[in-house]
Amino acid sequence: MSFTSHFSSFKVDAEAAVVEFVGTTVFLLLGLGGIQVAKGDPTTDSGGSTIEQVLYISTCMGLSLLVSAWLFFRVTGGPFNPNITLALLLVGEIKPLQFVLFCIAQMLGAIAASGLLLALTPGPLSNGVNPAQGVFIEMFITTALVLAVLMLATEKHHATPFAPVGIGLTLFACHLWAVSYTGAGMNTARSFGPAAVTGFPYPKHWVYWVGPCLGSFLGAGFYSIFKHYRYWSRPDQT
Amino acid sequence: MSFTSHFSSFKVDAEAAVVEFVGTTVFLLLGLGGIQVAKGDPTTDSGGSTIEQVLYISTCMGLSLLVSAWLFFRVTGGPFNPNITLALLLVGEIKPLQFVLFCIAQMLGAIAASGLLLALTPGPLSNGVNPAQGVFIEMFITTALVLAVLMLATEKHHATPFAPVGIGLTLFACHLWAVSYTGAGMNTARSFGPAAVTGFPYPKHWVYWVGPCLGSFLGAGFYSIFKHYRYWSRPDQT
Amino acid sequence: MSFTSHFSSFKVDAEAAVVEFVGTTVFLLLGLGGIQVAKGDPTTDSGGSTIEQVLYISTCMGLSLLVSAWLFFRVTGGPFNPNITLALLLVGEIKPLQFVLFCIAQMLGAIAASGLLLALTPGPLSNGVNPAQGVFIEMFITTALVLAVLMLATEKHHATPFAPVGIGLTLFACHLWAVSYTGAGMNTARSFGPAAVTGFPYPKHWVYWVGPCLGSFLGAGFYSIFKHYRYWSRPDQT
Amino acid sequence: MSFTSHFSSFKVDAEAAVVEFVGTTVFLLLGLGGIQVAKGDPTTDSGGSTIEQVLYISTCMGLSLLVSAWLFFRVTGGPFNPNITLALLLVGEIKPLQFVLFCIAQMLGAIAASGLLLALTPGPLSNGVNPAQGVFIEMFITTALVLAVLMLATEKHHATPFAPVGIGLTLFACHLWAVSYTGAGMNTARSFGPAAVTGFPYPKHWVYWVGPCLGSFLGAGFYSIFKHYRYWSRPDQT
Repeated sequence: MSFTSHFSSFKVDAEAAVVEFVGTTVFLLLGLGGIQVAKGDPTTDSGGSTIEQVLYISTCMGLSLLVSAWLFFRVTGGPFNPNITLALLLVGEIKPLQFVLFCIAQMLGAIAASGLLLALTPGPLSNGVNPAQGVFIEMFITTALVLAVLMLATEKHHATPFAPVGIGLTLFACHLWAVSYTGAGMNTARSFGPAAVTGFPYPKHWVYWVGPCLGSFLGAGFYSIFKHYRYWSRPDQT
Repeated sequence: MSFTSHFSSFKVDAEAAVVEFVGTTVFLLLGLGGIQVAKGDPTTDSGGSTIEQVLYISTCMGLSLLVSAWLFFRVTGGPFNPNITLALLLVGEIKPLQFVLFCIAQMLGAIAASGLLLALTPGPLSNGVNPAQGVFIEMFITTALVLAVLMLATEKHHATPFAPVGIGLTLFACHLWAVSYTGAGMNTARSFGPAAVTGFPYPKHWVYWVGPCLGSFLGAGFYSIFKHYRYWSRPDQT
Repeated sequence: MSFTSHFSSFKVDAEAAVVEFVGTTVFLLLGLGGIQVAKGDPTTDSGGSTIEQVLYISTCMGLSLLVSAWLFFRVTGGPFNPNITLALLLVGEIKPLQFVLFCIAQMLGAIAASGLLLALTPGPLSNGVNPAQGVFIEMFITTALVLAVLMLATEKHHATPFAPVGIGLTLFACHLWAVSYTGAGMNTARSFGPAAVTGFPYPKHWVYWVGPCLGSFLGAGFYSIFKHYRYWSRPDQT
Repeated sequence: MSFTSHFSSFKVDAEAAVVEFVGTTVFLLLGLGGIQVAKGDPTTDSGGSTIEQVLYISTCMGLSLLVSAWLFFRVTGGPFNPNITLALLLVGEIKPLQFVLFCIAQMLGAIAASGLLLALTPGPLSNGVNPAQGVFIEMFITTALVLAVLMLATEKHHATPFAPVGIGLTLFACHLWAVSYTGAGMNTARSFGPAAVTGFPYPKHWVYWVGPCLGSFLGAGFYSIFKHYRYWSRPDQT
């Protein structure tokens, strides 16, 4: 392999690693966020029984991986997990360079998700998010939902007829994290309807217009970027 | 594009917007109805722990979107959400006119769902629905189930072999809303069997004959209407 | 249509109605059985919060329909529900004779399921089933699991690659009913393993050998009968 | 059939029986492990209500079978259950020799799973696993996740586009067992991210590097072995 093809391979791998970073961030933002909700506030006993917490955590992590893997499956096929990446290296599915790049991307994604959770949420289960945090939470979860629609339904592939399942489960996973903080609007109509028939009781109703709209832009932006690079990196994953 | 083709495009878009209205109403009737159940009656502490409520709400919203999106996926592909619609506009999937019509339809659907919930249910978690409300609740949830069967199993498409999954999840989502109010019959045989072997203990057993039968007519009616317009609006969504 | 072809059509419809009877019985045995568990024992407060009960009931009914519809989907396409059957008549999918036969079969199936529950279980949530009842409960749930394997995995059709999903959900639905009564063995190995490593602490371990084995015979018997009649009644349902 | 072909058939059946042994062990390790969690610690009332326990147990067993059957479906089609195997014998799907070998493998698998649970966990719901037990728990659940990725996503077959669903549900099932003991890391990035942003509060963080890495090797090893024998044993199961 010549230097040029080495470099072109590196470029493809680096692009895939960026998607691994984004995917790992989405997976762990929803998953670790849900765990934070399950653990409850240690100062007030708001949580349920042990068994409820375990079921809740399992649901959060399981669904977060299910939907984030589904969204990015055709891009990198990536499980957002260095141990899976190691196994793929061992069975010869990926090459050492990819392995290294993917592991770095996954570690950075995990740090990004943990950092975002620290910044966006006021610690274990509390409703005390301020409007700015609320806007960003709404933006991130709407971005996930937008990506679900664009990657599963707009893109045509074998699983497209089942896009509604993936979209519904994305909404499920986003709720598991965000219900406790913002009520998980991520749909201005969903927030507007009840507010309209009850006389707009909440003064911060604008959060559910601004946050999800930003999510529309962010999701559409990510999709446009992926659209450029996707088909080259994993042409076999249909 | 001539005036005639503009008008014909408007007609197709307006028809799709009507389906968006119906779909958003179904989605939010089940979803917001479930949230009302989860929040419980504030005067009596009938609800569970915080974590139970969050899990319940997430399940309701996730499944409501999953099934309503699945039902209408091939008609409008619509996620019943103006923020998703905005993202579809941004990536060039839909045109500005469609965007405006869909958003109006989605907002009206959200108001319709919220209004129906106010009219049909006596406020947060209460069993005090009167027989007329019970008939309408049974009618609406049976309509959803009938549409699930007709759109997923009767219509032949790629996801038809998996129709039972969609039908079962529709029953799931309908129960999450209606168990607290009518027991969620939506099947006269299901109500008749236990009543027959226990000597018809409930005087209002007729509700489970009248409500679901009205649902059969309403569901079959919607289907016949959709059947006319469907294949023109989204011929690519198979 | 000549008399002969009328009669042959009646024969096909009557066979399909028998499957509707079996399917409705399976659906409601698991579904209503699960509701009985959720309602708990009124004399001792063993149940959970209202929200837990509603979630449990919704899961039971949703999964029971999902799996029983999946099992018999290609035989009658039947939703085990006279209201759905009415809607199918209204849109012209089935003929009046089929409608009448199916409704009768569905009503009888509902009565059979309710009667079986009365006979097999000692009333709301109790562990006081006797060994004979335990054998029959194990037999019925193993039959459901055997049918899931034979109808979804052994039979080759479009959904066969997803048979494990249907089989797992069948096990799920069976557990929701039977965990409270027999522990839901339905697998002699699953019962034998823990018993072997803990020195066979339960004297009635034989129940988990006899009941599931009877279920193997009953399930294989049903399958052999269906095998004869299936392909004629709904040749289009693949 | 000559002696040689008899022997070659025996070899294929014995190989399939080994897979049955591994699959039954995976199924019951996760399933019975989850039941142990649900039953809670009898000395301290850590468990939830009866209804929570039943729902938890049903989820554990249902998902464990779903994912383990999905993983090995194309290898042996095996439901890891002698009663199902008996039914398959009765309808002529498998031969008597296979029946005997499969039943022995399933019984041994059940004993192996029960024995592993005794060795790895300190009895009903306790956090008192020592680091060595933690490493092995992490190793086993990571192995399951690695196999899910390799068997569902890396291998190309009809269900490959839905691999993310199977992988997500595998993570779900693994959590249901292991959250109570190790927190169910099975992904070094997932453990590293939160630890990095909170200053590595747990001294045994190395467990989440060693255990999952061993799981990568074990999973990749199993896969390489299956890869040799698979296509001969069940060429029809695609």
